[in-house]
Amino acid sequence: MSALRDAAAAVGVGETTYSKESGRTELSLACEAIKKAAEDAGVAIEDIDGLVRYDMDHVDEAALTSHLGLKNLRWMSQVGYGGTGGNAVVVHAAAAIAAGAAETVVCYRALNERSGVRYGQGATWMKDEVGGAEAFQMPWGMLTPAHLFGQFARRHMIEDGTTSRQFGAVAVALRRHASLNPRAMMRTPITIEDHQASRLIADPLRLFDCCIESDGACAVVLTAADRARSLRHAPAWIMGVSQGSGSRTSGIVFRDDLAVAESTYTAAEVYRSAEVGPEEIDAAMIYDHFTPFVIFSLEAYGFCEPGEGGSFVEDGRIEVDDVLPVNTHGGNHSEAYIHGLPHVIEAFRQLRGTSTAQVESAELILSCSSVAQLSAAVILRKD
Amino acid sequence: MSALRDAAAAVGVGETTYSKESGRTELSLACEAIKKAAEDAGVAIEDIDGLVRYDMDHVDEAALTSHLGLKNLRWMSQVGYGGTGGNAVVVHAAAAIAAGAAETVVCYRALNERSGVRYGQGATWMKDEVGGAEAFQMPWGMLTPAHLFGQFARRHMIEDGTTSRQFGAVAVALRRHASLNPRAMMRTPITIEDHQASRLIADPLRLFDCCIESDGACAVVLTAADRARSLRHAPAWIMGVSQGSGSRTSGIVFRDDLAVAESTYTAAEVYRSAEVGPEEIDAAMIYDHFTPFVIFSLEAYGFCEPGEGGSFVEDGRIEVDDVLPVNTHGGNHSEAYIHGLPHVIEAFRQLRGTSTAQVESAELILSCSSVAQLSAAVILRKD
Repeated sequence: MSALRDAAAAVGVGETTYSKESGRTELSLACEAIKKAAEDAGVAIEDIDGLVRYDMDHVDEAALTSHLGLKNLRWMSQVGYGGTGGNAVVVHAAAAIAAGAAETVVCYRALNERSGVRYGQGATWMKDEVGGAEAFQMPWGMLTPAHLFGQFARRHMIEDGTTSRQFGAVAVALRRHASLNPRAMMRTPITIEDHQASRLIADPLRLFDCCIESDGACAVVLTAADRARSLRHAPAWIMGVSQGSGSRTSGIVFRDDLAVAESTYTAAEVYRSAEVGPEEIDAAMIYDHFTPFVIFSLEAYGFCEPGEGGSFVEDGRIEVDDVLPVNTHGGNHSEAYIHGLPHVIEAFRQLRGTSTAQVESAELILSCSSVAQLSAAVILRKD
Repeated sequence: MSALRDAAAAVGVGETTYSKESGRTELSLACEAIKKAAEDAGVAIEDIDGLVRYDMDHVDEAALTSHLGLKNLRWMSQVGYGGTGGNAVVVHAAAAIAAGAAETVVCYRALNERSGVRYGQGATWMKDEVGGAEAFQMPWGMLTPAHLFGQFARRHMIEDGTTSRQFGAVAVALRRHASLNPRAMMRTPITIEDHQASRLIADPLRLFDCCIESDGACAVVLTAADRARSLRHAPAWIMGVSQGSGSRTSGIVFRDDLAVAESTYTAAEVYRSAEVGPEEIDAAMIYDHFTPFVIFSLEAYGFCEPGEGGSFVEDGRIEVDDVLPVNTHGGNHSEAYIHGLPHVIEAFRQLRGTSTAQVESAELILSCSSVAQLSAAVILRKD
């Protein structure tokens, strides 16, 4: 992985307003976010020669060549498996740059998830025919992400004694961070009691364990080392990266063990490639589709021992002025659900010193995905 | 692009039987092709740490971790835009290897295109709602690839005087090559008169201008330079690569000029990165969804002057014992339609000296995609 270390840097970010109903096309949202990111970086639109996107994104590269005026893309790739593959877009961009296949690559995500296709609705996933792993899940009513990921949460409770109140501690921390963030959609602070009183969505997941639903888009510009140094702002270096699938990860029914996650692999590799360890990380941006997965990731990435994530998150330890600030923007849970890419943007903002929940002297930030068929992680370093 | 030159090599290939009705799942086909490719290369299944696929492939990486027993994938990426993006899978694999993000990467394509979802059928593409570029095409009856790509063919006829008989010369050459290939589905030689007598599909495209419909799967294993040298067979080096989008390529309605194709960019870049020119290429594997696109690509890749592709293909000049052998396996047109990946396999076979239409002392082979929103090219070199 050494060829990748510091070969690329994040140099600009862009976001639309996050809302429950954008009233615009996803293409329009994507164009706005990408233009803002290019402007923030100080690069011209025609300098963009690579795009990396989520395969679930409805905005494709050809549409962007026509609507943004891109001249010729030398790199186009897609990442699968939803938001948990999110950091993988940055991995792909960094690899393309390291290999010389492109110089200035944009990662983006645009979706009208609240006013359009709602991932949390069973009807979204219903099909006339199912095959593969779904054939073992859907007939039992496991349609939505909450149905599936609730099983992992329950397994952790059984194995390690993790409690719903500990999930609640994550929700409280993320909402507190969002309360400081004017971009955030959910800014009213909550308590653990509010969490406990929120309705069950898919046992053991309560409403306040789940990410919100949002419309919006965001984008990150990465460029090669030489170019990065010449731009407007100090770059945030892509110091280490990893992608991982684990083994037997098709659905949940084939897994040998719900406690052994892809993150086990991606954690080891991201630290190896960055040549740092968890004790050097100043803040972590963790994909929070559901609060228990923040706990699992804290264990997988070595911030505490396996099984101790539940107690680690108690008493505000993942809040901004404490042991390990997590999702200082509010995350999918409270800022907006733009499928995890804002986590990378927040890492960048922390290193630039412009977070609304700024971590004092932040130098190294981990952004990581979570369990679910594909995971990825990136460590960003201050210039 | 220098970081990519010779950083990776193709070391093994695998194919299922190609048929009109496989009677099996696409997952089963993919597993067979990948296992055969790994065996051909002499690498263990658990050594595969990367997968690159077409986004249209129904077989995802998670399914393969479960069904092949892959231990942990460090690289997973997808390429869009159908078969014309085909060589891009090799570009992605080579970039991942060059960047150190993976060591042994498999590119695959599995589809029951004839017995399952048929791309040539209008009903396959019909939707209740259309947006973007499709909104300007579909209401006019432009549903299938033949409808769209026929427009490019007609434009070439108008601008350059290219004739249907010249399209026929491509069909005759590809069928002759297939007649020598026991894997090929269509092995009865045809004449230009047979081509002219074949029915119109989408004017000016006749039946024998179109690729066939097939079920099957194939796979190519690539690995890093050091590892490649230690394996069973001589490697085929990935000497140059390129991807390109062109500009304003969303659909056909936004294009400034139907004659200016993405291939213009990918041709320049693949030669630049490989540090060779068209005069050094011994044979070309050109994505042949429709015969006219072989002609366009011969021009774009500099084998003849622009506008002269029609006369270039006459009199057997693209047949195996002539000026520039093209698609010596028979291509999408006559071997099988596995969406262009067999073109890379045939390039590999030529360099190994095992083609059924072997080009004497083949040293350098070009495999390239064609016009259509995304294109890509690879130059492979004999060890």
